[in-house]
Amino acid sequence: MQLTKAQRAEILIQALPYIQKYNNKIIVVKYGGNAMLNDELKEAVMGDLVLLSLVGVKVVLVHGGGPEITEMLDKVGKKSQFIDGLRVTDKESVEIVQMVLAGKVNKNLVNLLQNKGGKAIGLCGIDGKMIKAKKADERLGFVGEITDVNVEPVLDLLEKGYSPVVSTVGFDEENNTYNINADTVAARLAGELKAESLISMTDIVGLLRDKDDVSTLIPKVYVSDAPKLIRDGVISGGMIPKVNCCIEAIRRGVKKVFIIDGRIPHAILIETLTDEGVGTMFVSGNHI
Amino acid sequence: MQLTKAQRAEILIQALPYIQKYNNKIIVVKYGGNAMLNDELKEAVMGDLVLLSLVGVKVVLVHGGGPEITEMLDKVGKKSQFIDGLRVTDKESVEIVQMVLAGKVNKNLVNLLQNKGGKAIGLCGIDGKMIKAKKADERLGFVGEITDVNVEPVLDLLEKGYSPVVSTVGFDEENNTYNINADTVAARLAGELKAESLISMTDIVGLLRDKDDVSTLIPKVYVSDAPKLIRDGVISGGMIPKVNCCIEAIRRGVKKVFIIDGRIPHAILIETLTDEGVGTMFVSGNHI
Amino acid sequence: MQLTKAQRAEILIQALPYIQKYNNKIIVVKYGGNAMLNDELKEAVMGDLVLLSLVGVKVVLVHGGGPEITEMLDKVGKKSQFIDGLRVTDKESVEIVQMVLAGKVNKNLVNLLQNKGGKAIGLCGIDGKMIKAKKADERLGFVGEITDVNVEPVLDLLEKGYSPVVSTVGFDEENNTYNINADTVAARLAGELKAESLISMTDIVGLLRDKDDVSTLIPKVYVSDAPKLIRDGVISGGMIPKVNCCIEAIRRGVKKVFIIDGRIPHAILIETLTDEGVGTMFVSGNHI
Amino acid sequence: MQLTKAQRAEILIQALPYIQKYNNKIIVVKYGGNAMLNDELKEAVMGDLVLLSLVGVKVVLVHGGGPEITEMLDKVGKKSQFIDGLRVTDKESVEIVQMVLAGKVNKNLVNLLQNKGGKAIGLCGIDGKMIKAKKADERLGFVGEITDVNVEPVLDLLEKGYSPVVSTVGFDEENNTYNINADTVAARLAGELKAESLISMTDIVGLLRDKDDVSTLIPKVYVSDAPKLIRDGVISGGMIPKVNCCIEAIRRGVKKVFIIDGRIPHAILIETLTDEGVGTMFVSGNHI
Amino acid sequence: MQLTKAQRAEILIQALPYIQKYNNKIIVVKYGGNAMLNDELKEAVMGDLVLLSLVGVKVVLVHGGGPEITEMLDKVGKKSQFIDGLRVTDKESVEIVQMVLAGKVNKNLVNLLQNKGGKAIGLCGIDGKMIKAKKADERLGFVGEITDVNVEPVLDLLEKGYSPVVSTVGFDEENNTYNINADTVAARLAGELKAESLISMTDIVGLLRDKDDVSTLIPKVYVSDAPKLIRDGVISGGMIPKVNCCIEAIRRGVKKVFIIDGRIPHAILIETLTDEGVGTMFVSGNHI
Amino acid sequence: MQLTKAQRAEILIQALPYIQKYNNKIIVVKYGGNAMLNDELKEAVMGDLVLLSLVGVKVVLVHGGGPEITEMLDKVGKKSQFIDGLRVTDKESVEIVQMVLAGKVNKNLVNLLQNKGGKAIGLCGIDGKMIKAKKADERLGFVGEITDVNVEPVLDLLEKGYSPVVSTVGFDEENNTYNINADTVAARLAGELKAESLISMTDIVGLLRDKDDVSTLIPKVYVSDAPKLIRDGVISGGMIPKVNCCIEAIRRGVKKVFIIDGRIPHAILIETLTDEGVGTMFVSGNHI
Repeated sequence: MQLTKAQRAEILIQALPYIQKYNNKIIVVKYGGNAMLNDELKEAVMGDLVLLSLVGVKVVLVHGGGPEITEMLDKVGKKSQFIDGLRVTDKESVEIVQMVLAGKVNKNLVNLLQNKGGKAIGLCGIDGKMIKAKKADERLGFVGEITDVNVEPVLDLLEKGYSPVVSTVGFDEENNTYNINADTVAARLAGELKAESLISMTDIVGLLRDKDDVSTLIPKVYVSDAPKLIRDGVISGGMIPKVNCCIEAIRRGVKKVFIIDGRIPHAILIETLTDEGVGTMFVSGNHI
Repeated sequence: MQLTKAQRAEILIQALPYIQKYNNKIIVVKYGGNAMLNDELKEAVMGDLVLLSLVGVKVVLVHGGGPEITEMLDKVGKKSQFIDGLRVTDKESVEIVQMVLAGKVNKNLVNLLQNKGGKAIGLCGIDGKMIKAKKADERLGFVGEITDVNVEPVLDLLEKGYSPVVSTVGFDEENNTYNINADTVAARLAGELKAESLISMTDIVGLLRDKDDVSTLIPKVYVSDAPKLIRDGVISGGMIPKVNCCIEAIRRGVKKVFIIDGRIPHAILIETLTDEGVGTMFVSGNHI
Repeated sequence: MQLTKAQRAEILIQALPYIQKYNNKIIVVKYGGNAMLNDELKEAVMGDLVLLSLVGVKVVLVHGGGPEITEMLDKVGKKSQFIDGLRVTDKESVEIVQMVLAGKVNKNLVNLLQNKGGKAIGLCGIDGKMIKAKKADERLGFVGEITDVNVEPVLDLLEKGYSPVVSTVGFDEENNTYNINADTVAARLAGELKAESLISMTDIVGLLRDKDDVSTLIPKVYVSDAPKLIRDGVISGGMIPKVNCCIEAIRRGVKKVFIIDGRIPHAILIETLTDEGVGTMFVSGNHI
Repeated sequence: MQLTKAQRAEILIQALPYIQKYNNKIIVVKYGGNAMLNDELKEAVMGDLVLLSLVGVKVVLVHGGGPEITEMLDKVGKKSQFIDGLRVTDKESVEIVQMVLAGKVNKNLVNLLQNKGGKAIGLCGIDGKMIKAKKADERLGFVGEITDVNVEPVLDLLEKGYSPVVSTVGFDEENNTYNINADTVAARLAGELKAESLISMTDIVGLLRDKDDVSTLIPKVYVSDAPKLIRDGVISGGMIPKVNCCIEAIRRGVKKVFIIDGRIPHAILIETLTDEGVGTMFVSGNHI
Repeated sequence: MQLTKAQRAEILIQALPYIQKYNNKIIVVKYGGNAMLNDELKEAVMGDLVLLSLVGVKVVLVHGGGPEITEMLDKVGKKSQFIDGLRVTDKESVEIVQMVLAGKVNKNLVNLLQNKGGKAIGLCGIDGKMIKAKKADERLGFVGEITDVNVEPVLDLLEKGYSPVVSTVGFDEENNTYNINADTVAARLAGELKAESLISMTDIVGLLRDKDDVSTLIPKVYVSDAPKLIRDGVISGGMIPKVNCCIEAIRRGVKKVFIIDGRIPHAILIETLTDEGVGTMFVSGNHI
Repeated sequence: MQLTKAQRAEILIQALPYIQKYNNKIIVVKYGGNAMLNDELKEAVMGDLVLLSLVGVKVVLVHGGGPEITEMLDKVGKKSQFIDGLRVTDKESVEIVQMVLAGKVNKNLVNLLQNKGGKAIGLCGIDGKMIKAKKADERLGFVGEITDVNVEPVLDLLEKGYSPVVSTVGFDEENNTYNINADTVAARLAGELKAESLISMTDIVGLLRDKDDVSTLIPKVYVSDAPKLIRDGVISGGMIPKVNCCIEAIRRGVKKVFIIDGRIPHAILIETLTDEGVGTMFVSGNHI
C-alpha cells in the first residue's frame, strides 16, 4: 500500500471521534468458534484489542472453544452426544471442557494478548465466584444455566489495568463446574457491566436478507424488528439463540451489539474506530 | 471430643500470639503431589487457608499436580519419558500439562477454597506475565527454567482481597508455555514477596535422621547445616532438590520455611497457630 | 487438658464460620460492675477482645466502674445519696466519678488491652464531643441524660486500627460534665454505629425463668415478649432498665444483643466464636 | 479600646506573615503549674489554641497538673514526700496522679477547647502505647523515666483533624503506670514530632539577668550559651531542669523553644502571630 | 497606632468566630472597575485574600477591567460604541477585551496575589470550558450571555490549593470568544459553587437611602424589598443590574451577598472577620 | 483516497507500538512562529494533540507568538528595536507581549483544542509561580532569563486530566513580568518534567546538509556532533539558539528532541505514531 505520510496520518486523525466515544467505556468482545481457529487472524484480533486498550477502552474478552473441546474429547476417546444442538456433558466431559477452556484456550489467549503488548489475566466463571450456575436441563448434564453473576472480579482487574479474559465455566456450591454457552455469558456480563457495546465475532458476514447473497447484508436491526425477522426466516437455525443473546444484552442496558465477521482482518477496529461497519448492529428502539 | 465451653475458648485464646505474629504477613503454601489426592484432606487444607485469611494472613497457594497430569497423559495415550527424574515434555505434553494444571487442578482448588468461605482467583505464570521461562534443558523440551518473576499480579489480587492460587506454568515471548517445578516456583515467589514463611506440604513426616524411624524427626535445620545432612544421607533422593528450594527461599529473604506432613489433618493450622510443629523447619543462621 | 494436635486444630477450624460472620463488623461490649472486679477475669476479657480484633472484628469497649467510684468517694469521705436507685451526683462527686472512670478505669483497661497485644485509645464522652448530655433529673445533680451522640471519633479510631475504650462521661456547652449510665451509653453507641451485636457482660447467668434455678436460663428473647416477662416478674428490679437498654439497641438497628455471664472465662469468645451460648440473647421479631 | 475599622483590619493583616510561617506546622504547647490555675486565663489560652488550629497550625497540648494533684492527695489524706524536689510516688499516689491528670485536668481541657470551637481528643501516655516508662529512681517509686516514645497516635489524631491533648502518664508492660515530668514529655514529643516550635507556658516573665528586675529579660538564648548562664546563676533552681528540656528539644530538631509568661493574656498569640515576644526564646547555634 | 501587645492579641482573638464561620467555605469576590485602579489598594486587597486563604477560606476572585479595556481600545484607535450602557463589541474589539482581561489584568492579579504569599492560577471562561456563551444581542456583537457554566476547573484548582482568578471571557463551539459582564459571571459562579458569600467590591459606600448623605447607608436588604427600593429610586441607574445580580446569586443558593466599598482599606477583612460592616448586605427572606 | 476497510485498519494497527511507547509519558510540544499562522494547519495540530491525549500521552503545549506580537505592537504604534536578534522590550512592550501571548494566543489555542474534543487550561509562567525570571540583559529590558522553574502546576493539571497550554511569560517578586524565548521555556520545562520527548514545530523541513536541497535532510543528530555541524555551517543563524535548546533538553534528561516541519499536515502524528519521520531528531550519545 503506497500511502504518503499525510494520508497515513489522516487515517489516524479520522479515528479521533471514535476514540473519544469509547474512551473509558467497557467493550465486551465475544470470540470463539471457527473465527478463532486461524492463527494469523487470532493474532490480529489480539493486536486490535491491545490497541483498543491503549486508546482508553476497557476491553473484556469472553471466549468459547468448541472446536478445541471436540478435538480433546476425541483424543480421550469420548464421543459427544447432542440434544437439541446442545452437547450432553457428563462429569468426565465437563472436566475436559473446563481444562480446554480455562487451561488451554484462555491462557493461550492471555499469552498472545500480552505478547502483543497487553496486560491480561485469564479468569473463568469460578474465579471470584463470577458465574454461578445450575444444570440447564437434567438430560444435558453439566451444561450450565446462569443463576447469578458477580462482576466484581472483572471490575477489580480493569481497575488494576488488566484486560480480563473470561472462559465460560460456571460453578456451584457443591464444587461442581459447568459448561455455559459463550454467547449467553458475554451478553450477561455486558449487561451487568453496563458495557458501551458487545461485539460478537463470528464467521459469517452478518444477517443477510437473502442468505446466499452477501450484498443483502442488513447493517442495522432494531430489537423490536427481530421477531419479524425470525418469522421471515432471515434469522434462523443457530442464529436464533445468538440473536436472542444480542437482544438480551440490549435489554440489560448495553448500548449497541454487533455481530461482525471475524474473518475480516481487523474487523473490530473497523467497527469501532472507523465510520464503516463490517456486520450487523443491533440497537434498541423501533424501526421508523 | 467432650470439651467444656471454657476448654474450647482456651484453645482459641492460645492461638492469639500466633495470629498476632502472622497478621498482615504473606505465607506462601506449596501444595501438591500425593498430599493433594485425598479429597477430604484437600477440603481440610482449604478450610485451614480460609481461616488463615480471615485472621489476617495473606495466603498465596502454589500447587502442582503430578498425578493428575500423569493420568491425563495416560488417557490420551501419551507415554511420558523421564530424564534425571524430570519429565520430558514435548509440545503436545506441555499443552496437556497446562490444561490439567491451569484448567483443572487450579480452578478446582479455587472452587473448593471459595465454597469454604474464601475469595480466590486462579492464576498461572502466564497471567500478568508472572513467570517468564525458557527451556531448562533442550533434551527435556518444554520443562521451564524461570528467567524472570513479576509478583505484581499477586500483590494486586492480595490488595483486592483475593487469595491468589498459582499453577506453575510459565510463558515466553514466542507464545510457548512451560511446565515448571512447583517447589521452585513457590520458593521463588516466596522470596520475591518477602514472605513471612513458606510452607511446603508433602506426604512425608519431615526430615528423619533415621528414615525408618519417625521418632527421629529433625524439627529444625539451620541452612548452614544442610550440606552436612546431604553428605550424611539424611537428605537424599527427591528430597535434595526440595531442600535446595527451601534454602533458596531463605537466601532470598523468607523468614522460615517448613516441610510439613500434609496427611495430618489441619497440619497448617497446627504449624502456624499453635506452639506445636508437625515437620521440619528451616531457618537461616548456624546451629550453635 | 490432654488434646492431640489435631483436636486443637479442629477447634480452631470450628470457629471459622463465626469469624466469617463477624468479619469487619462492629461489636460493642459493655463491661462493668462486679464482672470487672476480678483481675484474672479482666485480663481474660481483654485477651478475648484482642483475639476478636485480630480476626477482623471491630471492637468498641464501653465500661462503667461503680465499685471503684464508691471506693474513691469513700476515700475522700463523701457519702453518696441514692434516689430511685440512681446516685445523686453533686459537682464534687461528678468530678470524682470523671476521674475514676476516665482517668483510672479507662486507662487501666487500655493498658491491659495493649499489654495483651491490642492497640487501643481511651475516650470519654467529652472527647470529640462524643456524648452531649443534660441533667436527667434536677434532684440527681450531674447524672446525665444523653441529648446527642457523635460517633465520628469512634469511627476515626477504628479506621486507624485502634480499639476505642469509652468511659461514660458526658459534656455540655457550659463546661459541665455528667455521669451517665453505662448500659444506656453502650446501647446508644451500638445503635448509632449499626453494630452487629451488643454484648453486655454481667455477673448473672442470664435471664432465669425461676431466679433460683440456673437450669431455667432463657437463651433467647424476642423483644416483643419482654413486656410479658416483666409482668411475670422474670425481668425485675435492676434488670428492667438493663433489658430496656437491650431493647432500645435492637430498636436502633443492632442485630443481636447478649446479656452474658462475665464470670465464665472467655464468655465473649464462647458467645461469638462457638455455637454455644452463655447467657440470654435478645433479637427483634416475635416468638412464634 | 477605640479602634477604627481600618486599624482592626491592619492588625489582622499584620499577622499574615506569621500565619504563613506556621501554616501546617506542628506547635507543641506545654501548659501547667500555676499558669493553669486562673480560670479566665485558662479559657483565653484555649481560645488562642483554637485560633491557631483554624489558621492551619497543628497544635499539640501537653499539660501537667501539680496543684490539682496535691489538692487531691490532701483530700484522701495522703502526704507527699519529696526527694530532690521530685515527689515520691507510691502505688496509691500514682493512681491518684493518673486520675487527676488523665481523668480530670485532661478531659476538662478538652471540654474547654471544644466549647471554644476546637475539636480535641484527650490522650495520656498509655493510649496507643505513646509513652513507655520505667522507674526513674527506685526511691521515688512510680516517677517515670521515658524509655520509648510512639508519636503515631498524635499524628493519627492530627490527620483526622483533632488537637491531641496529652497528659503525662506513662505505662510499662507489667500494667504499671508512671507520673512523668510534663516539661520532659513536651520536649520529647516536640522533638519526635519535629515540631516547628515548643512553647512552654510558665508563671514567670522569662529568663532575667537580674531576677529582681523584669527589665533585664533575656529575649533570646543560644543553647551554646546555656552552660555559662547556669554558672552565672541566671538559670538556677527549678529553672535548670526546665531549661535543660528546652535544650534537649532543640537538640532533637525543634526549631525554636519559648518560655513565655502564661499570665499575660493571649501570650501564645502574641508570641506566634505578632512580631513581639513575651518571654525568652531558645535557638540552636552560637551567640556571635 | 500605639497598642499594647494584649490589645493586638485581643483583636486577633475577636476574629475567631468569624474564621470558624468561613472555615472551608467558598467566598467569591468580584473585583473591578475604579476600585481596581489604585495600586496601593489593589495590593491591600490581595493581602486580604491571601489572609482569608490561610485561615481556611476558599477564595475565588472574579475580576473585570473596564478602564484598562477602554485605555487599550484608545491606544489602537478603536472607538467604542455603547447601546443601552453596554459596549458594542466587534470581532477586533473582543480580541482586545480578551487580551486585556485574560492576558493583562488577570495575570497581574495572579502575580500580586502570589507575591503577597498566595498560590493562584488565572483562568478565563474559555479554560476547561468554564463559561459557554452566545451573543446577548445581535446589535452588541460579542457581548456574551452565559448559556452554560462548568465549575469543575474552579473546584479542581481549589482542591489543589490554588486560588482561581477568573476573567470574564466566554467561548462558543465556533471558536468565538465573548466579553461578559463581571457581576453576572461572579453571581452565576457563586451560585453554582454554592458559595457562602459573594462580595462585590465597588467604589461606592453601599446603598444609600439619600444618595447625597453617606449617613443613610442601608446595611441590610432583604431581597424581597428590592423591588420597592427600585421603585423608590434608592436603587437606580447602573446599580439596578448590579443589584439584580446580587438577588440572582441569593436565589441560586448563596447565603449572603455584600456590596462593599473597595476604597476602604481591608474592607474585605472588616466585612468577613469582624463584627462590623462596610457596605450593604443582601440576604434572602423578608423584612419584618 | 480510496482505501479498503482493511487498509485503513492496517494503518491504525501499525500505530500500536508507538502508542505503547508513549503511553502515560509526557510530550512537550513547542509551537509558534510562522508554523502557527495558517488557521487550517493550526486546527490540524490541535486535532493531533487531542488524539495523542486520548491514546494516553500527556501533552504539554508551549507556544510563542512572534508575528501576533509584532502586529499588535504595530497597531499601537510601537516600533520594536532588536539587539542581537532579540527584541528590546520596554515596560509598555512587555505588557503588550503578555496580553498577546497569555490573553490572545494562549486562550485561542485552548479554545481550539477544546473544540476539537480536548480538555485544556491555559497558563503563563506567572500562574502558580511557574517561571521565575530576571532581566537577561539590561539593554534588552524585560526580556527574561529563567531563574527558577516550578512544574507543580503542570503536573497538577495533567493529574486532573487537563492539557496545560503554556505561554512564555515569566514573573519576578517585584510584580514585573518578562517575555521569555519559547524554545528556551519548552526545553527547560521538558527537562524538569523528564519528558519522553520534546517536539519543536517549525516552518523548516529540518536540518539540511545543503540548505538549498531538501533531499539532504539530516534525520538524526547525536548531540556530540552538534559543535561540528555549527563549525561546518550546517547549523547557522537563528538555528543555533534553537539547536542549543534541543541539546539543553537532552542534557536535562529528555529522551528525544525533534525539530519537525509544522507545515506538513499531521506532522506530529507522523513523527510520534508512525515509523516515518518528518524532520531532524536529536538524541544523546555519539555517532559511531
